[in-house]
Amino acid sequence: DSLECLAHPMKDLSVDDVSTLYPQVGPYFSDGHRRVDYVLAYHIQKSVNIRRRSSRFSDNNFIQGLRRSLSMRSSRAPLQPKEDPEIAAQEQRTNYHEDDKRFRREEFEENLLETGLELERDERCKIPGIGFLKIHAPWNVLCQEAELMKLKMPTKKVLHPTTVAKIRLFIHKVTAPLHPKVDANRQDSIKSLSHPFSREKQHLYSVFYKYQPIGLIRKYFGEKVGLYFAWLGVYTQMLIPAAIVGVIVFLYGCATVDDNIPSMEICDSRNNITMCPLCDRACSYWKLVTACGTARASHLFDNPATVFFSIFMALWAVLFMEHWKRRQMRLNYIWDLTGLGEEEKVRHQDGSLFDLRTTTCTSCLYVQGEKVKLTCTDRLPAYLTTVMMMCFLILVTFAIVFGVILYRISIKAALHVSTYPTARSNIRATVKTTAAIINLIIIIILDEIYAAIARFLTNLEVPKTDKSFEERLIFKTFILKFVNAFTPIVYLAFFRGRLVGRPGNYLYVVGSYRMEECAHAGCLMELCIQLCITMLGKQLIQNNLFEIGIPKLKKLLRKRKSELDCKEEEELSKTLQRHEKDHLLGPFNSLNPEYMEMIIQFGMVTLFVASFPLAPLFALLNNIIEIRLDAKKFIMELRRPIAARAKDIGIWYNLLRGLSKVAVIVNAFVISFTSDFIPRLVYQYMYSPDGTMHGFVNHTLSYFNVSDFQPNTDPLQPMHLGYKVEICRYKDYREPPWSSTPYELSKEFWAILAARLAFVIVFQNVVMLMSDFVDWLIPDIPKDISLQIHKEKILMVELFMKEEQVKRLAARDHHYQDNCTLPLSVPQSPPQARSRPISHTNCC
Amino acid sequence: DSLECLAHPMKDLSVDDVSTLYPQVGPYFSDGHRRVDYVLAYHIQKSVNIRRRSSRFSDNNFIQGLRRSLSMRSSRAPLQPKEDPEIAAQEQRTNYHEDDKRFRREEFEENLLETGLELERDERCKIPGIGFLKIHAPWNVLCQEAELMKLKMPTKKVLHPTTVAKIRLFIHKVTAPLHPKVDANRQDSIKSLSHPFSREKQHLYSVFYKYQPIGLIRKYFGEKVGLYFAWLGVYTQMLIPAAIVGVIVFLYGCATVDDNIPSMEICDSRNNITMCPLCDRACSYWKLVTACGTARASHLFDNPATVFFSIFMALWAVLFMEHWKRRQMRLNYIWDLTGLGEEEKVRHQDGSLFDLRTTTCTSCLYVQGEKVKLTCTDRLPAYLTTVMMMCFLILVTFAIVFGVILYRISIKAALHVSTYPTARSNIRATVKTTAAIINLIIIIILDEIYAAIARFLTNLEVPKTDKSFEERLIFKTFILKFVNAFTPIVYLAFFRGRLVGRPGNYLYVVGSYRMEECAHAGCLMELCIQLCITMLGKQLIQNNLFEIGIPKLKKLLRKRKSELDCKEEEELSKTLQRHEKDHLLGPFNSLNPEYMEMIIQFGMVTLFVASFPLAPLFALLNNIIEIRLDAKKFIMELRRPIAARAKDIGIWYNLLRGLSKVAVIVNAFVISFTSDFIPRLVYQYMYSPDGTMHGFVNHTLSYFNVSDFQPNTDPLQPMHLGYKVEICRYKDYREPPWSSTPYELSKEFWAILAARLAFVIVFQNVVMLMSDFVDWLIPDIPKDISLQIHKEKILMVELFMKEEQVKRLAARDHHYQDNCTLPLSVPQSPPQARSRPISHTNCC
Repeated sequence: DSLECLAHPMKDLSVDDVSTLYPQVGPYFSDGHRRVDYVLAYHIQKSVNIRRRSSRFSDNNFIQGLRRSLSMRSSRAPLQPKEDPEIAAQEQRTNYHEDDKRFRREEFEENLLETGLELERDERCKIPGIGFLKIHAPWNVLCQEAELMKLKMPTKKVLHPTTVAKIRLFIHKVTAPLHPKVDANRQDSIKSLSHPFSREKQHLYSVFYKYQPIGLIRKYFGEKVGLYFAWLGVYTQMLIPAAIVGVIVFLYGCATVDDNIPSMEICDSRNNITMCPLCDRACSYWKLVTACGTARASHLFDNPATVFFSIFMALWAVLFMEHWKRRQMRLNYIWDLTGLGEEEKVRHQDGSLFDLRTTTCTSCLYVQGEKVKLTCTDRLPAYLTTVMMMCFLILVTFAIVFGVILYRISIKAALHVSTYPTARSNIRATVKTTAAIINLIIIIILDEIYAAIARFLTNLEVPKTDKSFEERLIFKTFILKFVNAFTPIVYLAFFRGRLVGRPGNYLYVVGSYRMEECAHAGCLMELCIQLCITMLGKQLIQNNLFEIGIPKLKKLLRKRKSELDCKEEEELSKTLQRHEKDHLLGPFNSLNPEYMEMIIQFGMVTLFVASFPLAPLFALLNNIIEIRLDAKKFIMELRRPIAARAKDIGIWYNLLRGLSKVAVIVNAFVISFTSDFIPRLVYQYMYSPDGTMHGFVNHTLSYFNVSDFQPNTDPLQPMHLGYKVEICRYKDYREPPWSSTPYELSKEFWAILAARLAFVIVFQNVVMLMSDFVDWLIPDIPKDISLQIHKEKILMVELFMKEEQVKRLAARDHHYQDNCTLPLSVPQSPPQARSRPISHTNCC
Repeated sequence: DSLECLAHPMKDLSVDDVSTLYPQVGPYFSDGHRRVDYVLAYHIQKSVNIRRRSSRFSDNNFIQGLRRSLSMRSSRAPLQPKEDPEIAAQEQRTNYHEDDKRFRREEFEENLLETGLELERDERCKIPGIGFLKIHAPWNVLCQEAELMKLKMPTKKVLHPTTVAKIRLFIHKVTAPLHPKVDANRQDSIKSLSHPFSREKQHLYSVFYKYQPIGLIRKYFGEKVGLYFAWLGVYTQMLIPAAIVGVIVFLYGCATVDDNIPSMEICDSRNNITMCPLCDRACSYWKLVTACGTARASHLFDNPATVFFSIFMALWAVLFMEHWKRRQMRLNYIWDLTGLGEEEKVRHQDGSLFDLRTTTCTSCLYVQGEKVKLTCTDRLPAYLTTVMMMCFLILVTFAIVFGVILYRISIKAALHVSTYPTARSNIRATVKTTAAIINLIIIIILDEIYAAIARFLTNLEVPKTDKSFEERLIFKTFILKFVNAFTPIVYLAFFRGRLVGRPGNYLYVVGSYRMEECAHAGCLMELCIQLCITMLGKQLIQNNLFEIGIPKLKKLLRKRKSELDCKEEEELSKTLQRHEKDHLLGPFNSLNPEYMEMIIQFGMVTLFVASFPLAPLFALLNNIIEIRLDAKKFIMELRRPIAARAKDIGIWYNLLRGLSKVAVIVNAFVISFTSDFIPRLVYQYMYSPDGTMHGFVNHTLSYFNVSDFQPNTDPLQPMHLGYKVEICRYKDYREPPWSSTPYELSKEFWAILAARLAFVIVFQNVVMLMSDFVDWLIPDIPKDISLQIHKEKILMVELFMKEEQVKRLAARDHHYQDNCTLPLSVPQSPPQARSRPISHTNCC
């Protein structure tokens, strides 16, 4: 008894031609005249007794959607007509009487008819069990809705292009090869409102180096989807410079690897430095020169250029936000949304009275058929559950990460004991890679589970409005996914290698496992590997498998479900009408998963960019594919979504802002604590005898007297290196065994710690100041747009003044009375005012 | 040849009664019927040749103002009619022909007449040299302007009060004694627009504990002034809890002064600690016990409660901003400004085309009478001058502060040498107090000079619009005044006592002066004194002397200038008409000085609150007086300002936000570096043998071997204390003389430095996070207001839907044609829509 509603607007695919050839096949009513604007589908039992299962939820939801997309052009958020709650109430009352579902459906249809819509039933369709109700919205209904929503319409009066506009036109011509060959700039008259847009389909799916036909996307899918693609476009575009600079930084690291004194010193076999064993008993002393490869590799990601790069990326993030704000403003202007101002915001912020969520009201209380308003006390348990559950899930994530750490430690220990020399030589690489892959798999699995849990928890809370439902769901999902994706990375960046203890006094977990140490040159290298695998793997698997593979699978299954044999199907597919074909596509859920994926990626790009300058490049490559895949998916795989208007990208913008703020502090910590940047600086300017980096490696290593090993932790093979070791070295700043306070943290440790912390403060505040400055420098509204808006306003005032003058001259003889009523119905939008003379009669 | 324009709206003072008694004396035209809405004053030469000096600038400016205040109620920012630029252009052409000034004035008057205004000339007035032009705006002109500005008018339909409103009403009743006895809630019909508001005068100047009659202030002065008083009211109100908590924190300090172990140890004469001399040669060794008083006093301001208090104040600042935002929104709703949305903002951000500043266009280029648009190259010199000048002035401020330091050092040295024992005992107090007073005087003098320079520099830049002029001026003035007020305080808080060097290796400035040290318990005490004197002195002098005294003086001088003898004056003052009396008052310049004063005070309250918890109390006391003094000044001392509409307090809000952000980091540094909070914590948890504060004083003092004094710096009287000193102590963390690296910074120094820096990071980020959380938690728009707005909208939609239904039913028979034009002139504001049925005719 699935009460799924299958309402969706028509997909338009070359219907013009079809309808002229076969008038009754195309998306027209059987008279071949009235266009089908909307199709409502419902389940019918295959028995002759036509007992329809169209659910009240979906019907009610449908009327919202219908209103929204009645006119595809920009307009205010749909205001629910007062009939709706009545319908809902009526329907609620009859909820438990399955028998009169038909009655309810008929009443619903009557209501539709009453609002002026024209209906046509189509139950002779080729998909058994499904009935279709075609809806045609006549011109006067569209007019009425447009008026109610205060649509802004293009008028005949065209503004003369300014110089700036001319320059733009020139740029447009120069970049012409990059534009898709779609007739996007065609002047649409008002009548084109209900024209089919048959051409964008093939072009949206055009080649990757062309601009997106945003205008057409918006016309076909509505503003919300249009904004998503515009945002994705801006993001991808902004990634290009970031990727280029990132590659340059990486290449700088490659080029300077041979000039790097610390790694030269490590690789110099004449510096005969004996290091303390890396594990108890099984491991023995080792020579620092064996860490040569890692040290050289680390330099690729840990060089002065990364500091510059993370400042650059912090400013890049601000620039991106600013650029998007301007782009959004421009789109708002082009799409005539500038009128949607503060009032709209107000409406969204409060719990809009009639926007009561009905689709998720499964947990509402219906006492005697009356809906009871939930009080704070009613909501408290749900909120508590949410908080507890969220904390629990975050703890689960931590536990899993800790499990992976244990896996690494134990495997390493096991491999060390193993007698196969080949296994031992590849120990590090094997462990690192398998652990990262395990992490990745867990992240992907948990992502799906967490998304489901977040939805369940939000349902429990019974939010008042659709908007609040969406925001809460996004917020929860974001926190869970973010924690899930970033916990292993944060561990690697800030905790690994710091909780090790020291030789003779190691920290042990779960019995006798020593905590992991980093490679000699810091953990940056491993952080890189982890980031690389997470980014690449997540994107490849989630994009290709989940976004493309699974919808295809679902579609296949759905086709199976509709009980058509393969042979019949092929035949049918040729004769199936448009709306019947559409019915076989997957339903459009929401844009949230697409946004979420991008936000997490944005996090990867900005948060740990100090440790992985290639992140923007990877993101760029992914996004170039992503845009087109998303476009293809929306057009080919899913039903056409109900057009929704939106002025901005909502909560996502706040999340982006939050991330770019957090990124500053995270990068400050990565540079000062994870990389060796600060110790190098301090050494060079405070301790180096000759002002160079010579001797840095020696300075970072403390001394350990092997006689101070705790019992049963000294190496089994002390003579592994061929000579007796008395003093071994380890990476830390501690007093030597011969000082008065052996193995205590040394003065150098505190000095370097102070320097690290000072760097964090300076970096954070300088970057924040610079960000605020950039934010202040760039106006939110592009100059040409604000000028344009201003000009339109002046034109309107001029018109108004002229009329007033005429009126005044006429009225001067009449002698107005003092208490005449004001002519108050001022036209709202300038273009309208210009299009038709305002016909105010004299006010007395 | 002062071209000052004296246009100002009428002051209303019990004119009703007067006009009925003496019809031709009151502010009515000579027919005793038409009200004088506006008076334009101009200079006429006393010779018979009536050559008027009314300037084109002021005339042009006047028409702006006139438009603004034509209707006192809320409305959009004035849109310049297209006539204005023409007038300006014509007038510019005739700028150099003094002869036809009269012609120009007459043309101007003709233009006024053309816009429908009615004029009456009054040159038989009692003040010689001044001509008055009375203006009456007839009802139809007001109607027209109201329509053009899309004024929202109250309608007959009253919303039923909700429960919340009822509670509010109850609260209102309870707090009734606190409300001024003004009939503020009187329902004004539309006609009251031009009624005199004669009663608020005496009540605005009512007692301090009553609420301000904001509604009346706004009616009389316009929204801009109304918002200022509302803002000041909110600020003062919010200062009450801050002052209370501040006093509690101070009292906590007083109560715990006897339990404070460090000051007990200092005051304990058994701890026989010999300190190194405080100056070269003249000073000798001293006993720590003599610093007992200072140590005890320091505890008042340097105790754990101050940490809590500065966190509290950071959140307080956020709460204040939020509270103001909500109050502003509420006022916007009550004053019907909610419609003024984004578009208005757009208009303000761009360089509005017709808002060309003319009052300051003294540096515009007029080539052949044509105004030349300034290019970037033209503007560059002015910008460069500004930047250079600002830098120079900031350097001057620094130099002056350094001069005061030198004064302190040299006086101290001189007094030390002096042989009078009484002088020597009072050395510290004398020096501190005189230095602070000198600082104060310099600050006040420079404030005035800098304000003038900022205005001059902004004039040089020739900004495009009034708004941009104001913003640039405010920005410059703010920077200069801020630097001026805070440089001495910042020096005291962060630099004093840190650049001293150490015994045997002191830092010398200007030859042989040693840099200042702090008293033993840190510089916090001196910071307090400085803050106290600056706040009290600045407020007392600037408020009373400058704000009250100088305007009075100016008024006196102006009366002198108008060449009236004292005796005549008294006689005249009885017979003078209202507008003639008003003419004798000072002109209203702008609100900026008032705001600036408050912002600097806000800076004092939030920036260094960690060191001076009584600051909010002082600010509160000042503001309670300030509000009423400002009100009195605006009503009694100044001409009634031209009413200006405003939706918010503009750039001041951004400055407040900036200050409250800076406050977080400044307070973090004050707590961690200026106070001894962190060293105490570190001692207690890292070094203390028994976990208490015992031994802390000893721990903070380093050892110095007197044999290490540089030649000629050792004390002249080494036996001053009665015994031979070999080792003296000084406050620093350095190695003792017997270590391997004597007098180098010790490990403790670095550990404490790291702790201080870590505290700054933690404090800054925690407080910022909490602030953001509070910001997010509190909705910007009060719940009841947003509900109200929403309800109004729904009522409008209901009405609309009803009408549409009627229309549709009627039209169903007609069969609409497909290409009918849309009935597009939708009424904008819900109340209007409700007040009169919308009379759309059928669209075909």
